[in-house]
Amino acid sequence: MPTATLLVSCPDQQGLVAKIANFIYANGGNIIHADQHTDLSVGLFLTRIEWELDGFNLPREVIEPAFGAIAKPLGATYSLHFSDQVPRLAIWVTKQDHCLLDLLWRQQAKELKAEIPLIISNHQELAAIAQQFKIDFHHIPITKATKAEQEAKQLALLQEYNIDLVILAKYMQVLSPDFLGQFNQVINIHHSFLPAFAGAKPYHRAYDRGVKIIGATAHYVTQDLDEGPIIEQDVVRVSHRDDVKDLIRKGKDLERIVLSRAVRLHLQNRVLVYGNRTAVFA
Amino acid sequence: MPTATLLVSCPDQQGLVAKIANFIYANGGNIIHADQHTDLSVGLFLTRIEWELDGFNLPREVIEPAFGAIAKPLGATYSLHFSDQVPRLAIWVTKQDHCLLDLLWRQQAKELKAEIPLIISNHQELAAIAQQFKIDFHHIPITKATKAEQEAKQLALLQEYNIDLVILAKYMQVLSPDFLGQFNQVINIHHSFLPAFAGAKPYHRAYDRGVKIIGATAHYVTQDLDEGPIIEQDVVRVSHRDDVKDLIRKGKDLERIVLSRAVRLHLQNRVLVYGNRTAVFA
Amino acid sequence: MPTATLLVSCPDQQGLVAKIANFIYANGGNIIHADQHTDLSVGLFLTRIEWELDGFNLPREVIEPAFGAIAKPLGATYSLHFSDQVPRLAIWVTKQDHCLLDLLWRQQAKELKAEIPLIISNHQELAAIAQQFKIDFHHIPITKATKAEQEAKQLALLQEYNIDLVILAKYMQVLSPDFLGQFNQVINIHHSFLPAFAGAKPYHRAYDRGVKIIGATAHYVTQDLDEGPIIEQDVVRVSHRDDVKDLIRKGKDLERIVLSRAVRLHLQNRVLVYGNRTAVFA
Amino acid sequence: MPTATLLVSCPDQQGLVAKIANFIYANGGNIIHADQHTDLSVGLFLTRIEWELDGFNLPREVIEPAFGAIAKPLGATYSLHFSDQVPRLAIWVTKQDHCLLDLLWRQQAKELKAEIPLIISNHQELAAIAQQFKIDFHHIPITKATKAEQEAKQLALLQEYNIDLVILAKYMQVLSPDFLGQFNQVINIHHSFLPAFAGAKPYHRAYDRGVKIIGATAHYVTQDLDEGPIIEQDVVRVSHRDDVKDLIRKGKDLERIVLSRAVRLHLQNRVLVYGNRTAVFA
Repeated sequence: MPTATLLVSCPDQQGLVAKIANFIYANGGNIIHADQHTDLSVGLFLTRIEWELDGFNLPREVIEPAFGAIAKPLGATYSLHFSDQVPRLAIWVTKQDHCLLDLLWRQQAKELKAEIPLIISNHQELAAIAQQFKIDFHHIPITKATKAEQEAKQLALLQEYNIDLVILAKYMQVLSPDFLGQFNQVINIHHSFLPAFAGAKPYHRAYDRGVKIIGATAHYVTQDLDEGPIIEQDVVRVSHRDDVKDLIRKGKDLERIVLSRAVRLHLQNRVLVYGNRTAVFA
Repeated sequence: MPTATLLVSCPDQQGLVAKIANFIYANGGNIIHADQHTDLSVGLFLTRIEWELDGFNLPREVIEPAFGAIAKPLGATYSLHFSDQVPRLAIWVTKQDHCLLDLLWRQQAKELKAEIPLIISNHQELAAIAQQFKIDFHHIPITKATKAEQEAKQLALLQEYNIDLVILAKYMQVLSPDFLGQFNQVINIHHSFLPAFAGAKPYHRAYDRGVKIIGATAHYVTQDLDEGPIIEQDVVRVSHRDDVKDLIRKGKDLERIVLSRAVRLHLQNRVLVYGNRTAVFA
Repeated sequence: MPTATLLVSCPDQQGLVAKIANFIYANGGNIIHADQHTDLSVGLFLTRIEWELDGFNLPREVIEPAFGAIAKPLGATYSLHFSDQVPRLAIWVTKQDHCLLDLLWRQQAKELKAEIPLIISNHQELAAIAQQFKIDFHHIPITKATKAEQEAKQLALLQEYNIDLVILAKYMQVLSPDFLGQFNQVINIHHSFLPAFAGAKPYHRAYDRGVKIIGATAHYVTQDLDEGPIIEQDVVRVSHRDDVKDLIRKGKDLERIVLSRAVRLHLQNRVLVYGNRTAVFA
Repeated sequence: MPTATLLVSCPDQQGLVAKIANFIYANGGNIIHADQHTDLSVGLFLTRIEWELDGFNLPREVIEPAFGAIAKPLGATYSLHFSDQVPRLAIWVTKQDHCLLDLLWRQQAKELKAEIPLIISNHQELAAIAQQFKIDFHHIPITKATKAEQEAKQLALLQEYNIDLVILAKYMQVLSPDFLGQFNQVINIHHSFLPAFAGAKPYHRAYDRGVKIIGATAHYVTQDLDEGPIIEQDVVRVSHRDDVKDLIRKGKDLERIVLSRAVRLHLQNRVLVYGNRTAVFA
């Protein structure tokens, strides 16, 4: 059964829960999930509310304007999602296959409710996987000189394939501010427990520092490299017996699990970004 | 600032969030925490809702009957709590001091908002700690023959000290069904990852089984030994190098942390029991 | 560079480390890994010792009898392994693909140093994966009536393919004592934190019990169902929001990681079984 | 029964295990724990070896020179420890009591085999705890102007009390290079998952960054602030519901557990520092 989900953030004030719940109840909706959080440090009320469309009196195309009439006087920003509008993902990779395969498996196993029509890579190693899963593969190599031009091609592909979300599944290139200005729904997996070891070669640096735990971080991409809002992190123990290769091997399991959790949370509209933070209504 | 908290469970139906939120909003209340869950397997709607009493129009003594008028037609059961009514705890122990000390320290550090006027033990070893913290200590030894009579004394003490919650902080005796029939707000810490190793000597049995992880479980006490609703669990890795003494030592850290987390959640009215399960609105 | 590894257990006594180390040193071997453990509760000394074959004076075929001459008076049992003798695995499955895919992917990524020439299943669903990875697939359905006869076929295949280790990667059948009497190098993944929820439908029972953490367990298979020596376990948090389907989904990630860790440890000869326990020299 | 423990590091070469084990065996020693690691990246062999002194033929005062004769040609550095020589600790604090109390409890519970004759603080808040545990308390306030002079007093106290190890149990002052030049056996607990949030106010910065996991780190103190060799780390999950106060509260549990684990490992001579790393033979 299809559902509608509202993600709302607005300045904290009395009656917010009542007003939003009444909007749904008055129109015959049955709420199946509602979660609120008030961030007192910034005076923001945040909520995720999901209800069944079956029996809801408002036609779909009217829900957004109708809710807008309530949201405007509250100073609220919001987004509305329908569970049967399946998002379309592009997965971007370089040479490593573990995150890509993991996402594709999970999509086939219906853990991720999404279509994946497009894989983009700056290398050619993973073309065979795309072929095996019958997904279009576009090889777009990047050099300093060609970056602007190649990003234009990437943006054109996102438009052509009608992509809602880009997943950087170990894509070893930085997106330019220009690119992000035109397309900003991007999730990245960083192979460290951010903010530790932001930047390049985190496992080598973790080894050099002698840490006893390593991690991985999934975050939205912003113009500040490795500084975007964090969606999910996880860690695993290491010891003096683990050399850099062991860290990389252990980290790969972290990367694919953390990335897939973050993508799933995003696809279920459970992540609300505010400032440089996320509320995750899991 | 004092708050009121409602914990509500009722058969799932349309308009529940709206009705409860309206009750608070209509009376001038500002909701600072609201969390819902619908357990579809049993058709139950569960919610915790907390609002500021400051500015709320209903006098305290009227809130419960007023909400009752809403709850009755919904078939809801509920409990109402005021944050400035500080619960009174009795801690029951045998000989081990780690959970007791931890709870007392957290209460002093204001992590646990509670009064602790009473310690009961079937042994005398921990009397000095009670004295140091200026808490009344009652030594009530238990034998098979004296159990009924001694439990009567325990119940009298709970009444005399006006106790809201008993914490079995490594109290190595089983409470009788009779006792629990008269007082059933009891949290126990079991030194295993239940349901593994229910019953006696869990660390010895965990060692014999050769497990690679041990755990601890905080749960409400029911007449079925070690079968009550679980509030919190946690685990720690062990290896072949750990003998039974190491398991006991590592387990003590788990026990005190798991127990104190469970007590804190209970004191903040974040635990809603339904059937033999808990919803923990953390 | 090839190495030799000895796994030794013997009654504790003076001079064991010296005698074993001398045997290797006297013959020109360079030890690259040595780890010992004395289990005082049973008076057993356990060790894993690995050295480079390059420069070692004894021909390979002489190492075992030569070490045997030292081991016999010590009452030691031992096994000898050469790193360049790559073990041959058979993976047994039913219908679920996640553990199978994970093992195959890790073998391709060289995380598992093994050959995988054979997949056996009591169903046909996973034949396509075998084909894709170019591995022989044998469909051997099992009913109560045909079990003895079909196990004979399975044993014949293990012999034909010269299999060293069977991995039950969510194979939903119990191996008979007869089978295990003839082939006992078998690792199973159980989808619970053993000994909790041994037997069937562990996720359903975990849900019913209301646990806050679920787990998975990799163990050697013995004639006592779910009672064999544990190699590895891991856990993940769940909450009241997770229904049985969520537990199954979260559990799948645990299962594949725990199983693959256990298989890797076994393949590196890091697991020493004694009694119903394991020492894992990781 | 008393034991001797050797911690040895030396350039990797053939016969090291044999030579060290023979030294002990030839003198009648029974090894109860031996663990080795070869760090190939720096070509170092590291070992911890512990044996019973009962029945060992060499008098205690001869063991070090006797082993020195073996160590010298190998280019080895080593330290020798006797289990019945109980180390003497000084605990340094500022105002927070949780780590101090935890260490004192564990020492009383015999989890930490050490004497604790001295507590030093730059404030007076914790004097009562020292008194309660009958430990000398010295109040040594520090200002920029008085730092050198006050550190001289601190060093004099360490000498007077014959202190082997200083534990900075939330001591909110930096030790000068001068101080560390004269006394360098110092363990610190840092309230973050280093190298993330090195320096001041890590919980505030973790909150601002929106991390989903926080940590604590126990490390040896060196002249580079928060850069010394890490002994132990651990982490705990946080969510958008946790404000800075919650992070601080959750972090306190991490801090005391991570610090006490590190101190225990050090006291059992299980930590071998090399370069800026540790091998922890746990």
